[in-house]
Parts: sequence; structure tokens; C-alpha cells
Amino acid sequence: MNDDNVVGRALRRWGRGMTLNRDDLAGGRTAEGGGEPQQLRRRSLLAAAGVLGVTGGAVAVATTTRSEPAQAAEGVTKRITIYAVALPGNQFGYGLTPDTATIPGPVLEMYEGDTLEITLVNTTNQRLSIHPHGVDYSTDSDGAPFNNSFNAPGETRKYVWRSHEMTATSGRRFLPGSAGYWHYHDHAMGTDHGTAGLIKGLYGALIVRRRGDILPDKQFTVVFNDLQINNKVAPNTPMFEANLGQRVEWLAIGHGNFFHTFHLHAHRWADNRTGYLEGPSDPSPVVDNKDLNPGNSFGFQVLAGDSVGPGAWMYHCHVQSHSDTGMAGIFLVRNADGTMPPGAQEAIDRFNGHQHAAAAKASAQTHVHGGTGS
Amino acid sequence: MNDDNVVGRALRRWGRGMTLNRDDLAGGRTAEGGGEPQQLRRRSLLAAAGVLGVTGGAVAVATTTRSEPAQAAEGVTKRITIYAVALPGNQFGYGLTPDTATIPGPVLEMYEGDTLEITLVNTTNQRLSIHPHGVDYSTDSDGAPFNNSFNAPGETRKYVWRSHEMTATSGRRFLPGSAGYWHYHDHAMGTDHGTAGLIKGLYGALIVRRRGDILPDKQFTVVFNDLQINNKVAPNTPMFEANLGQRVEWLAIGHGNFFHTFHLHAHRWADNRTGYLEGPSDPSPVVDNKDLNPGNSFGFQVLAGDSVGPGAWMYHCHVQSHSDTGMAGIFLVRNADGTMPPGAQEAIDRFNGHQHAAAAKASAQTHVHGGTGS
Amino acid sequence: MNDDNVVGRALRRWGRGMTLNRDDLAGGRTAEGGGEPQQLRRRSLLAAAGVLGVTGGAVAVATTTRSEPAQAAEGVTKRITIYAVALPGNQFGYGLTPDTATIPGPVLEMYEGDTLEITLVNTTNQRLSIHPHGVDYSTDSDGAPFNNSFNAPGETRKYVWRSHEMTATSGRRFLPGSAGYWHYHDHAMGTDHGTAGLIKGLYGALIVRRRGDILPDKQFTVVFNDLQINNKVAPNTPMFEANLGQRVEWLAIGHGNFFHTFHLHAHRWADNRTGYLEGPSDPSPVVDNKDLNPGNSFGFQVLAGDSVGPGAWMYHCHVQSHSDTGMAGIFLVRNADGTMPPGAQEAIDRFNGHQHAAAAKASAQTHVHGGTGS
Repeated sequence: MNDDNVVGRALRRWGRGMTLNRDDLAGGRTAEGGGEPQQLRRRSLLAAAGVLGVTGGAVAVATTTRSEPAQAAEGVTKRITIYAVALPGNQFGYGLTPDTATIPGPVLEMYEGDTLEITLVNTTNQRLSIHPHGVDYSTDSDGAPFNNSFNAPGETRKYVWRSHEMTATSGRRFLPGSAGYWHYHDHAMGTDHGTAGLIKGLYGALIVRRRGDILPDKQFTVVFNDLQINNKVAPNTPMFEANLGQRVEWLAIGHGNFFHTFHLHAHRWADNRTGYLEGPSDPSPVVDNKDLNPGNSFGFQVLAGDSVGPGAWMYHCHVQSHSDTGMAGIFLVRNADGTMPPGAQEAIDRFNGHQHAAAAKASAQTHVHGGTGS
Repeated sequence: MNDDNVVGRALRRWGRGMTLNRDDLAGGRTAEGGGEPQQLRRRSLLAAAGVLGVTGGAVAVATTTRSEPAQAAEGVTKRITIYAVALPGNQFGYGLTPDTATIPGPVLEMYEGDTLEITLVNTTNQRLSIHPHGVDYSTDSDGAPFNNSFNAPGETRKYVWRSHEMTATSGRRFLPGSAGYWHYHDHAMGTDHGTAGLIKGLYGALIVRRRGDILPDKQFTVVFNDLQINNKVAPNTPMFEANLGQRVEWLAIGHGNFFHTFHLHAHRWADNRTGYLEGPSDPSPVVDNKDLNPGNSFGFQVLAGDSVGPGAWMYHCHVQSHSDTGMAGIFLVRNADGTMPPGAQEAIDRFNGHQHAAAAKASAQTHVHGGTGS
Repeated sequence: MNDDNVVGRALRRWGRGMTLNRDDLAGGRTAEGGGEPQQLRRRSLLAAAGVLGVTGGAVAVATTTRSEPAQAAEGVTKRITIYAVALPGNQFGYGLTPDTATIPGPVLEMYEGDTLEITLVNTTNQRLSIHPHGVDYSTDSDGAPFNNSFNAPGETRKYVWRSHEMTATSGRRFLPGSAGYWHYHDHAMGTDHGTAGLIKGLYGALIVRRRGDILPDKQFTVVFNDLQINNKVAPNTPMFEANLGQRVEWLAIGHGNFFHTFHLHAHRWADNRTGYLEGPSDPSPVVDNKDLNPGNSFGFQVLAGDSVGPGAWMYHCHVQSHSDTGMAGIFLVRNADGTMPPGAQEAIDRFNGHQHAAAAKASAQTHVHGGTGS
């Protein structure tokens, strides 16, 4: 389950600000137009790998000159195709191929200064779009119908997302760069704000990293969408797995009509850009419970089981009626060698077997309600 | 639309910690007791100008001696009159004259150390008050009925708001100063918490700046008040305008009974005191979507269209049912020369013409509900 | 009311990183197994005193060697007994003795690196547990039924909470330590998430301090639990008292099914780990109103009446319908000599006498509703 492959090493060297050469990238293969490379352990590395230039001829390294902003000169451009697809049960998903659409969609990653050119193929009979948070885009890539930026049923359309590094401004202060744990989502299905697209699954995580940021071994995306998690209720919510000590990146996103608080048992993080502290004078509070309301997103990294050991740990919404009706799931921290720790299977069985059975039933009923947009 | 006038220059010099003299202030004129100076581009400069001593004889420069707190010795005192006025449609507003009351009320500004003496004239037949967040006040300026601090119908009463700089305390830590993006509001109409006054419009922004803070070219106040923005629903919500590159200060305030998330398209800011980063080790997350719940306030500055270009950009509550029923508006970024960018008028027309027509109708009905305090 | 006793002095010396010797601790007495020492002014010092080794033979100073993590070697272990007790009115509380259970339960404190071994005695006929936020625990101390970690009716069970200091990781970043304003609560009564235990009062504050943190003179715990404060509504909510200039630590915790915003009149704090600023470049916003949603907790210290003077100041939820129905209370800042400031008693009388009478009635009815978990 570790990520010690050629692309991972290359990303890490790059993350440390070292020069990349082609040797670092040997072994990378084309990911353009879908077709997830099997050797990539993390789905989201796809976009990052593109950024590194490992995805072949389709990747355009930026050719801007030094007279343009520094961040543009340093960034590269990655072109990907995303398919919006109807899924069973009146759901919709984004995928890097028409056959691999998921809820949530693929994690997209870039470094500050990079550009992501997305060809969105709408394979459905609905109006829809893709709207990002955090990055830079012109009005024609807004994804908002009022800017005439959407895909009609069956239409293919290009969206361009750019990013930039922090820049100095007056008073020794800096305009922020694009780095953040962001997200993307439909902004056009059902209403001009994409309410139907969101409730039905058209959302995913978007990460913009600052050079030098720490890269994770694994990533988990958790979307609190009305009264569900990733459009599921317990016990069908995702069970995320890692081995003791693996560096896990959590990507938390909120959508819908309800307020939520994300709680993770036995792990804690700094409530700031990275989840780490910059040092003893970093004033960030440390939290294990954080508001996750519609349109919010945050991310953080933890070492699986750090200071607490392996086991089945719960993550859930801390609003009591929400957790009771199924907004809960399991973070399974295995032993360092990948074996199951004592008691973990029993905990999983309890979670699956009876504790959340009534909840799942109640929550499924609730979802009918939530699905009306009320 | 730029702010390059005599008061603006004076404020900027002062902001940089330079000495002011009367030459800097030539051209300023009296603003005491209302009467907004025409040459001031930003309404809120009124209070700040008073702080600078440009408003004539009524301004009392603090005469405290060195035996008193340092911040008091450095601050100045500004006296203004605010009128609480009944407006059409069973609304109420604060104004610097009886004829210019607005919803929200005028932006009030001061520097840490300054004092604002407010004579509140209650021209209505309701009990009401003015209660500030963030600044210092005695119980008789609390604005809370339980402290017997309110205006009876027709009554005039003085409220004094003071402020202070940060001061050292134990352990190399500092007690915070007053600087912040605060707000003021009624605390006495309808209930002891001002519930009727708030729902009907008695609120506004209050800024306390730290010396050296960057001054904006323009300011926009956005109040999420129950299910409305500034007591309006789309398409009647305010359209804020700036030219490409202008430094725009957003003042966001929450009121009422609902939770909200403020989202601004294509712009992002650091989630901290100023919206800027202090440098590479500033741990603040960068956001474009932030909780804006009752009693909350925050502010930030952006360069209009920075990294994205001009156009019609949406700001809205990201709670889906809230945006769908009219909690949305337009931030129009014009070209640098003030002309309209391509497509912007069409976007505005779409927004005004049909997309939010049903929303406005639905939201107006909702407001009847919200007005009951439920 | 000040805290200038032997334990307070010892804690302060320790807080400054100085060496403790037995002379510092002379006068401390046994607190093991309940029995709050009378000379301790703050209930929460009980645990802290244990940490210091003043509570006699039951305290086990950690005997780990240098080959183990540094924080373990520096920390100490404190053993306490907590009783979960049925209270009148279908309420439940935690107490350090069976006769002193309160809502909220006792404040528990430790320094980063310390361990708290809690023997939880369940004197009730209900399944219940104790689940902490922020600290480190194995699955058998999780307090979650799915990990088989709970007390059956009448059962006694041990829970172990550990903590750690920040540690360096890659990229000049640090994994956060355990320091924070945390809380603990039932996770097993009524539902697998402890919904019945929470609504009925099984919660309390937990503080993990970093060495060098400033110690307060007084502590107030405020729990926004559904539509009540500490399971009370105005005018029966707690009146917190301090003398002008005393260093007061507020511990704010959210529980239940509703969102809230905590507002404190006339005082403000930095929205970060401590409530203080680290210096002029600390980017933390300063606030006087902060979201307090289920599972959230935060804390901060203020000097009572700082910059505003003595008087009766209100704290309340800023959601209008919540404050109007009784989520409000009084922070009474007495004169420095402990006498009542002018007007304070009248304000208290107004608060108690009539303003919140209807509110209390309405809120009591609301609580029946809230108690159903809706």
C-alpha cells in the first residue's frame, strides 16, 4: 500500500524543490484521456503526474517567457478529459473515462503556477458543468449558467483552471497563492446553482500544492452531502484503510442544505492550511472536529494510528441526529505490516451488522427528503 | 472610481506611520452631524476622516497624558450623529442624516486607540439601540436593555466606543488589540436581543484598523440576514462594481436565525485578520467560502479580477436552498478603464431577467416566514 | 477569589519551565478517588495538581526511559475516579465523587506528555462511557460501543488518556501536540453516539496545556447543548463572576443537533489556540462571536473587564431565536475589591425578574422537543 514508486519519488524530489530530469520520470506512462495507470497507487496522482510531464505528448509545458509572471513561467499545463456520466439509482458521477465515473469524482492535483485544461464530456441528457473553488478561471470557465458556461446535454466543452503563487503587495503583506484543499462541482444541473447535480453526486476534491508541501501516501475524500457521506449512509459509507504510520491525507468537503461537523476519532490536526504546525509560535488551534458546511473544504495529513495505535476508528458527523441516522464510517488502521489488529474485525462486524442497520433504513428515508432540496 | 483624493492620501500616509500635518488635510471639510462630503469616494471614510481631524471643530484630539494607557494617548476622538429611521416596507435603517438612512448602515472606521462618540437619534416610535462588536464600551454604552442602555422612542442618547492596541502580557504573549472587521446592530427592538431591529435592517459594518494596514479603494458590505442579503433577494441584491485591479474590501456580516456560507467566485483570500498572508510561514488557510452565521463578521481585501480578469462574478450563499431562493448577487469587475468587458451585460441580463425571477418570488414568501423570528 | 495558593504558585513555576521541588508542593493533599481538596480554588486544579505529584502515593510518575518518546519521559501519570450519576429531572452528570456530580462535569487538565488514567464508575442503570477529544487513546479507551468500549449498567471500567508534545516531521513542519481546549462526553447512552447521554448532561471540559502556557485565575465552562446552556435556560443559566482584572479562562463546548454562535459582550480574544496573540505578525483574527457547533470546543483567556470596566455583561448565543428563548447568561465583573459595581444588581434583577421569564417558559417547552433528538 505504500507509494514508493517512480512517480512518487519524482513528486517528492520536486516537492523538495530539486531539479527533475528524465531519469526521475522513467517508467511513467500516458494517462491522457483517461486510462488510469496501474502503477499509480493513488488515483489522484494522475493529474500530478501530468504536471510532471510523465503523461506523454499531450502535456504542454508552459512556454511563457520571463516577461510574464514568475509563477506562469514555472508552471506547466496538463490536459485531461473528464466524463460526466449517469450512474444507477438516479446518481451522476465524474470520471477520467466514461466507465470509471465515481462519487466523489477523481482527486485532481496541481502545484501553484500550473494550469489544468479540462475537456468535460457530458454523456448525459442533463445540463451540467464543472465549477472549481480556489483556482483562477475566466468567465467562460466559470461553470455558471449566468456566464453561459455549461455543457448542454451531450455537449463537450473545455474549462481552463490556472493557479499562481503568493505575490508581495503593500505593507510587507502578500496576496495569497492558490495552494489549498479545494473542490470542484456541478453548477448547472437542476438549478442555476447545480442543486440537482450536487445532490446526485457531481463533486470531487481539487488540491493545489505549494512547492515543498509534504506528499501523502494515501488520500481519502469525505463529502458531507446533505445527510449522506459520499452519497452513502452507514453501514455503506466508505471504510478507509491505511497501515500504521502511513501518511494519510483527508480531503473533507461539504455540500447541500445542512450544517455538519466532521469528527475523526483518535487523530487530530492543526486547523490551518496544511494540518501541520509551522513551529512553536504557530498559533493554529489543534482540532479533531471541524465545521463542514456547504461549499466548505479543508484537508490535513495524519500518520495513521499516530500515538494511538492500530484499530477501527470512527469518523462521523458530530451532529447527533446526523450520526445516528448514518453519517458515520470507519477508518481502519491496520498493523504496520498490513495485518488486522486485534478486535478490529469485531468492531467492523458490529458496525456493519446491527448498529447501523436501523440507521441505514432511517437515513435512506431521509435522503428521499433531502433529495427534494428541502 | 479611484480614491486618490486628499483624504485618501492623508489616510495612506498615516497608515504608513508618517506624521500628518495640516497640509495633508487641506481640502477636507466638515462632516460633523451628518452631511456626507461629496468628494469622499467611500462613505465609510467619513468616520476615518473624522479621526484624522479633518472634520472641523467638533473633533476632540485626545488630551490624555502619559500616565494613562499609551493607546489612549495616541488615539483621537471622533463625534458623529447617527439617526435610526423608519423606512418604507416596515424596514428600519441607520444613517448619518435623517434622510440618508440605508440598509446596511454606514461603514464606521477607526484606528486602534481611537474613540468614537455616537449620538444616536431615535426618530422612530420603537425602542432601539446601537450595540458594537469588538470595541470597548462601558455598560451604559452596551446597547442592551438589561443594562438600561437603549433609546426610548424619540429619544437621543450617546454611546461611546473606545479601542486599544495590543499589549504585552505573560509568557511573551499579547492581549489582542481591537483591530478587526466588526459590526454594529440594534439590540433592543422587539426583544431584549434586538430581533425585530435586526430583521428589519438595523445593522452595519465597523472597522478597526491597525496602524499600517492597507487601505482599500472600494468597500462592499454584505449582510446575510436570515434568507436575504442586505434585506434583499435576487435579482434585487446589490451589484457591486469595481475596475480591474482596484483594491476591494469585502465586509461580511451574518444575522438572524439561519446558518450560511459566503462564497465569492474567482477570488480567494487568507482566512485571517486581513485576508493577506504575512509571509511564507503564515499558516492561514486560503478560502473562497466561509461560514457566515449570526453575529459573525469578517473582512478581506482582493484586487478585483486578480488572476482571472474582468467579468460578472457571482457571490452567493453556498447553502443550496438559500442560493436557489435568492441569496446571490453580482460582483461586476469592469475593465481597468471602466468599460464593460465582453459578455458581462449579457450575464447581468440573464441574472436579472429570468434566472432569479422565481427565486425572488419564493424568497419574498420566505421572508414573511423569516420575519416571524422562526 | 484569587488563586494565589501553593498549588497555583507551583503550577505557575512549572508553567514557566522552572524546576519544581517538594517545597513548592508543600501543602498539597490527596485528591485520589474524589474528595476535592478544599484549598483548591478551581475545581479543575484537581487533575493538574495530580500531574504535579501533590496528590500523594497514588500518583505514578512515569518511569519510561530515554529510549522512549521524549514526551512520555517528561510526562507524569495521574489516576482519578469519575462517577457517572443519575441526577434529578432525568439528568445525568459526571463527578469526582458520587455526591458531587455536576452538569457539566469537572474540568480535567493535563500538560502535554501527561497521562490520565480514569476509573469510570457507572452508578446508573444505563449503558454509558467517557469519550475524550484531542488526546491519545487505544481502541479499548475509545468509549465507543462499536469498539466494545463502554460501561454496562453498574460496571466500573478504566479509560486511559495519553498526550504528547509536537514532533518534527518532513519539510520543517511539525506534527501537532495534544495541547488544546478539548472536552469529554458520553458516547454510549441511548444510541451508539451517546445522544441520550449528551442531551441529559454527560459532558465536560478537558484541557491539555503546553508547557509555558499562561494559567488562569478562574475558569468558566459554557456548553451550548441543543437549545440550552449547561442544560439550563435563562434566567437559570449560570452567572459567572470575577473581579476586575482577574484572568478568566472560558471553555466553550457545543453539543446536540443545532448550530450556535457564542458571543461575549465587551470582551474579545484571538481566534487561535490560546486566545492571545503571539506578536505583531500573528495573523489570527480577533473575535467576540464564534461558531459553537456539535462536537466543537474552544477556549480563551480574558482579563475580566479589560478596557471596559466592571459590570454585568451578557454572554449568549447570537442566533436570535436561541437567545430569545433563553440561551443567555451573565458574566458579572465585580470591582477589583470584590464589591458590586453601580448598576450591576439592577441589571441582574432585570435579567432574572422579567426579561427572560417568558423565555424560560418557552425554552423549557423547546427542551422537551430537543430531548427527543429531533
